[in-house]
Parts: sequence; C-alpha cells; structure tokens
Amino acid sequence: MSPLDLTRAGAASLDEANPLRGCRDLFDLPEGVVYLDGNSLGALPRAVAPHLARVVGAEWGGGLISSWNDADWINLPARVGARIAALIGAPADDVHVGDSTTVLLFKTMVAASRMRPDRRVVVVEPTTFPTDGYVAAGVAELLGLELRWCDPADPAASLDDDVALLALTHVDFRSGALFDMATLTAAAHDVGALVQWDLCHSAGAIPVDLVGVDADFAVGCTYKYLSGGPGSPAYAYVAARHQDRFRQPITGWMGHAHPFEMERDHVPADGVRRVASGTPPVLALSALEAALGVFDGVDLGTLREVSLSLTDYFIALLDDRLGDPFEVITPRERERRGSQVSLRHPDAYGVVQALIARGVVGDFRTPDVARFGFAPLYVSHVDVWDAVEALVAVLASFEHLHPAYAVRNLVT
Amino acid sequence: MSPLDLTRAGAASLDEANPLRGCRDLFDLPEGVVYLDGNSLGALPRAVAPHLARVVGAEWGGGLISSWNDADWINLPARVGARIAALIGAPADDVHVGDSTTVLLFKTMVAASRMRPDRRVVVVEPTTFPTDGYVAAGVAELLGLELRWCDPADPAASLDDDVALLALTHVDFRSGALFDMATLTAAAHDVGALVQWDLCHSAGAIPVDLVGVDADFAVGCTYKYLSGGPGSPAYAYVAARHQDRFRQPITGWMGHAHPFEMERDHVPADGVRRVASGTPPVLALSALEAALGVFDGVDLGTLREVSLSLTDYFIALLDDRLGDPFEVITPRERERRGSQVSLRHPDAYGVVQALIARGVVGDFRTPDVARFGFAPLYVSHVDVWDAVEALVAVLASFEHLHPAYAVRNLVT
Repeated sequence: MSPLDLTRAGAASLDEANPLRGCRDLFDLPEGVVYLDGNSLGALPRAVAPHLARVVGAEWGGGLISSWNDADWINLPARVGARIAALIGAPADDVHVGDSTTVLLFKTMVAASRMRPDRRVVVVEPTTFPTDGYVAAGVAELLGLELRWCDPADPAASLDDDVALLALTHVDFRSGALFDMATLTAAAHDVGALVQWDLCHSAGAIPVDLVGVDADFAVGCTYKYLSGGPGSPAYAYVAARHQDRFRQPITGWMGHAHPFEMERDHVPADGVRRVASGTPPVLALSALEAALGVFDGVDLGTLREVSLSLTDYFIALLDDRLGDPFEVITPRERERRGSQVSLRHPDAYGVVQALIARGVVGDFRTPDVARFGFAPLYVSHVDVWDAVEALVAVLASFEHLHPAYAVRNLVT
Repeated sequence: MSPLDLTRAGAASLDEANPLRGCRDLFDLPEGVVYLDGNSLGALPRAVAPHLARVVGAEWGGGLISSWNDADWINLPARVGARIAALIGAPADDVHVGDSTTVLLFKTMVAASRMRPDRRVVVVEPTTFPTDGYVAAGVAELLGLELRWCDPADPAASLDDDVALLALTHVDFRSGALFDMATLTAAAHDVGALVQWDLCHSAGAIPVDLVGVDADFAVGCTYKYLSGGPGSPAYAYVAARHQDRFRQPITGWMGHAHPFEMERDHVPADGVRRVASGTPPVLALSALEAALGVFDGVDLGTLREVSLSLTDYFIALLDDRLGDPFEVITPRERERRGSQVSLRHPDAYGVVQALIARGVVGDFRTPDVARFGFAPLYVSHVDVWDAVEALVAVLASFEHLHPAYAVRNLVT
C-alpha cells in the first residue's frame, strides 16, 4: 500500500478514485451530517419513499385484498430473499425474509439442535451481540441443552463431539473484529457440529460466501448495511442439504405446504419457505425491496476494497492526529477487520455526544466504546477526514474541561 | 326490531341514521367497489400515507439513528399497544405490539403452559384458524404436552384438571360464529386452566372486554378490522396478574430489563414488555399507529350496533331475494354472530369470482364457503343492498350456465 495522503485534499483524491462514488446519490442524506452509524441504522435510499407510497396508495388502497396476487405480495419473502442471497453467497432459493433477527435466530437454533438429537451442547461466543446469547440460553432451557460460552480468541477450542451447534457472529458488534468463517465452519464440521452465522454486522459491507464456506445456517438483519429501514425484517439462510429436515417450532400457515387449503394438521412447505410462520409484513418488505436496489451492479469485492480503504484511512488519521488518547480495539489487520472502527476511551459516551453536536454521528456502546461505522456505499474519505477533525476538536475541549477523561455524561 | 325496508331507498335511510356514517370518509376506498373483505384486509385509512411518508422522510432519512429517541420509536410497541388496549377492554399497559400473530400465539402458549407445569394438555377447537392449531401442535411437541381437539359446539366438555390451557378464537374465521368469552373463560378457570383468546376476527368490530371476562391472555392481528395494513404487526395481552411469571422462550434484547446495558444474561423486563424479542418494526408500527386514529371517539357499543345492523340487513335481503340457493352458516342469533356472514354454496369459488368481476369483493374459503365481512366504520347499508343485487344477478347467470351449481372454477 502506498503511503496515504492525510490532507483533506488527499481525502478528496481518494473519493475521486472510488469506483462506488456514484452510489452516494442513491441515498437521501441530511445536509451537514457525517453519518458513521450505518452499522446501526442504514441511511435512507431515495427509492424507498416513492415505492412505499405506491404500495400503500395503489396496492393496498386501490387493489385491496387482490394485491396479494395482483401485486405478488405473497411472494415478497422469497423475492426479497433472492436479492439478499446475492449479497451473502447463497443460492437465490435458500433465503427466507420475515420476522425479527431474534425470532429467526430462535427458529434456526431449535431446528439445528433437533438435527443433532444425540448431542446436548450449544456453543456461543460471550462477546456476541447479547440477543444471540439470550436466544441460545432460551433454546437451551427449552430443549434441555447445555449452553457453553467459548473463548472469543479461540471458539474452536470449545468444540467436541457433544456439540450440536456452534453459533457465531461474523463481525463483532462492539469491536468490529471479523471471525474467520471458513476455518471455524470447518472446525465445527470436523467434530460433527452444525454452524449458524449471524451476519448482522457484515452483510452489505463485506462479501459473505455461505456456500463457499459450507455454512449450515445464517441469520441477519437488514436495517444496518442493507438500509432496509428501522426494524426492517430479518432473513435466514438454510443450506439446501438441510432443508428437508429443518423443523422450526413456530409452525404457522405461511410455512405450510398448502396454506390456503386450511388443513387441520401442519405439513411443512418444501424448501426455505418452511421457515415462515405468519402473514408477511408487506409494507416493511416493500421498503426493503426498494432499498436493496442500491446494490444493483455493485461488485462485492469492490465494496470490500472501499470499506477497507475507509477504515484504513480513519485509523491512519487517528494515528497521525491523536496518538494516545484512544485505544483502537478493532483489529488493524485488514483480514480481521469488519466495516467499523471502535475506540475505547474512559469518556466515550461524552465524546460521542459531543461529536453528534458537531454533526458527526457515531454511537456509544457500554461501558467505554465509541463505534464508527463505514457504510461503503455512502461514506466518503472526506467524511472520514471531517470526522477525525471533529474528534480532535472535541478532545481539545475535553482536555480543558476534564483532563483526566474520567467524567462521564458531562457533555450532552 | 321494526320490519326492515328492503328497498335501496330503505338502505339509504338506514345509512342516514347511522351514527358512524362520517367514519367512511376517513378511508381511501376505490370508486365503484363494494368492499366486503375488511375481515381479511382492512381498507386504507387516509391518515396512513402522509404519516408514513413523514416517518420515512423526516424521521428515518432526516433524523437517522437519533429518531429512536427523538421520534420516540423505542416506545412505539407500548404506545400502539395502549391504543389497541382501549378496543379490547384491557388496561393501557398490558398490551404489547410486535411480531406476527403466529409468533405471539407461540410465545403466549409456551408461557401459559409453563405456568401450569403439573398439567399436560392444551385444548384447541378444530375449526379455528389453522395457524392456531398448528402452533398449539408445535408447542405441544416442544414441551411434551398433549394436544386435545374439543367439540366446537361445546369446548368446555373437553376441560378437566389436566388442562393447562384452553386456546380459543373469539369469532370463527370461516362461519363468523361468536364464542361466549365470559362463559368459556369461567369454565376453564373452574378447572384451574388458563385461557388464551384469538381476537383476529373480532377486535375492531365487536367490543371485547378482556378484564371483564377475566381473560388470561389474548392475541390478535391488526390488518383486518384494525386496518393496520397488509401483514401489520400483531398484539398480545397478558393479564397483569400473570406478567411476573410470564416466561416466553424467544428471549431477545428488546424484552430485556436493560436492553442497552448489553448484559450477558437475560433478565426479563417488568410488565408486558417482556413479550418483546427483537427490534420493533418501526415503519409497520407507524402505519398502524396512524391507522388506529379511525377509532378515535368511536363508542364500541355503537360500533357493534352498526355491525349487527349491516349483517341483519344482509341476511334479511338474502332471505327476501334468494331463499334457497345459499345456506347461511353464520348464526342468525345476534349474540352468536361476529361481523361477517358466510354462505355455503357448491360453487362458492365461482360465485365469489363473478362477484369480484362486478365490483363486489368478498372471499372464498375452501371447500364451499363465500365470506362477506362488514367493517362497521366504512361499509354502508347501500353497499349491502348493492352486494345482494349483484349476487342475484350472478346466480341468474349461473343458473343459465350450470343449473346444478356443480361446476367449480368455471367463472373467473
């Protein structure tokens, strides 16, 4: 890598050379804001508002009940699933969309555990997003299994032939560290365990190759890098080889082989549709469908290069301008880094609030982490430069106010 | 009841006397359509489109992540729950909104069964909406319980001291028959069982008094009489006396006592928020919140009177104009009738299709039922008159085409 030009003009040059620079115009970003929280809530794609207005007015209001067929609402979960499949290295037919991430984690963990009835351990990584652990604990209680917390630095060390499922997150929500999906999946398979990946903090910013790594299951949200909107529906991948034996416990009519026959007994649908439970959330799925258009024609390798260029640049500027005050807890090795950079600081909460007041939006995670996410479709190198400039100014004011960085919640 | 005037002018007179006649203007109904399928998908309230456009543009696009606090997204499930509570006789704090009906049925059935650990039977009524039975079967398998199908004419006969939960629907989706909530709840309590009511086909058209009948749990959808939009989120009621011991199995961060503390172990929130699992579906909840404004100032006793007036009138017109060709399977007794009228006919599918072609929208339920729903806020007596007129015309054409009514799917 050639040395980076750390001036603002240098940042602008990097943006000019960015092959994805045109994508920013696909989003409706507020003026004067540097938005580095797309890893929590993705920015609004311009296509969403007019599409949703049409779905509400013409399809719901005008078409009424007939829109289930005439506007093909009934196939939204599969249609949107096929679009997401293209971003995660999955065949188009193997991704279902609906429910929340939590509910899909639950369905998948129960179904996976049922596929290994002779095993009684579910392994979870303790720094994972809390819900993943909560759900695993809930499933363990329900099925009489043991929940085993692994060492984050070496999840494979917790694997043995009593493990039914290894449930890991691809990118750690707090540190931004990227797990090695291929190696860990292979390690689990070596002991006969199944693997479930949580893609919430990777899909849409980092290429995922579920088929390539031979993953069994994956679940992810769509409101971060996929920009589907606040609380938009989640998705689940079930490897084709497991679909016939995938028995999730929330058996509703939309996962039935013949939903409109209204049969008394449940017969799971063929394929990934058996993941479905209730009536699909049409408005939310429609917003998501329109949002996913921002990925049309985007090469995922290029997306990754842009993401790394942004995080490289952020880290280089921090090193150059700040040095000591922050500990970068995100791995500096490119192959271990997601699309965010997290900093540890005793007054991280106050720093994040002060940055927001200056128009630079990151977020705080308890107890002392400031997170900055770099959505590669709409964050520029100039944004990165301006964010670090604001951080320098905030810290200067903090040194004056409380040099020991020991006071929390002072700046709001 | 005075004799009904069965002329179209008589229908118009009934509409003039309807105290809720102004409510129709709150909906965006297509011209030339008589919409009698609000029991499947409620019509579009006019307030939804502008509100949703504001939530998307200003709150998501403009406010981005800060809208979780600034636009109070985080409290949408509770805020919308309070509005629904007012329609079902529940205290404002005891209703949670989120997930699909299927998922909430599952959570509630598991939690209820766990409250009666010494009992091993769940009783379900076999003509209920299929999902209710599917979910009960799924829960029974998961917890090692027995699923007992009761006699639809006498559910209480299946109760004994081994029953943990009686799960019933308030209004039968197919026949429109209304179950006696107070009597059946009392019968279940007499043997120490808990009761869960499915309100999908009653709330918003029929007064529900959950506290008055001493119900334990209730679940309902919001896309039928509540007009929340296709696949809008469902709601769950948990009686205050049960909330502390309510342990649903899909333990996610939004049901945690301290979601943003990111603790490793799950501690259920106080109150009904423990029903929550994942991130709330903000766009769908916002559409629903705006939609529920149509009930502002509506007296539920008046709503019921209007509903009964519409179904009385439909049945009277059928008797007068048609007589034999249809069997009315909806109870003629007012106290046993929901807000729909269902007819049995060997060519029900063809009849419904022919009516749709004439602008009268009802729906077909296998094998031989034509359903007509009467949403009391926007269906008029003139609509009812026009629908029966269309039905007479359709049947006349059918007599010519296939007098035995034995051919299905011929008219499309």
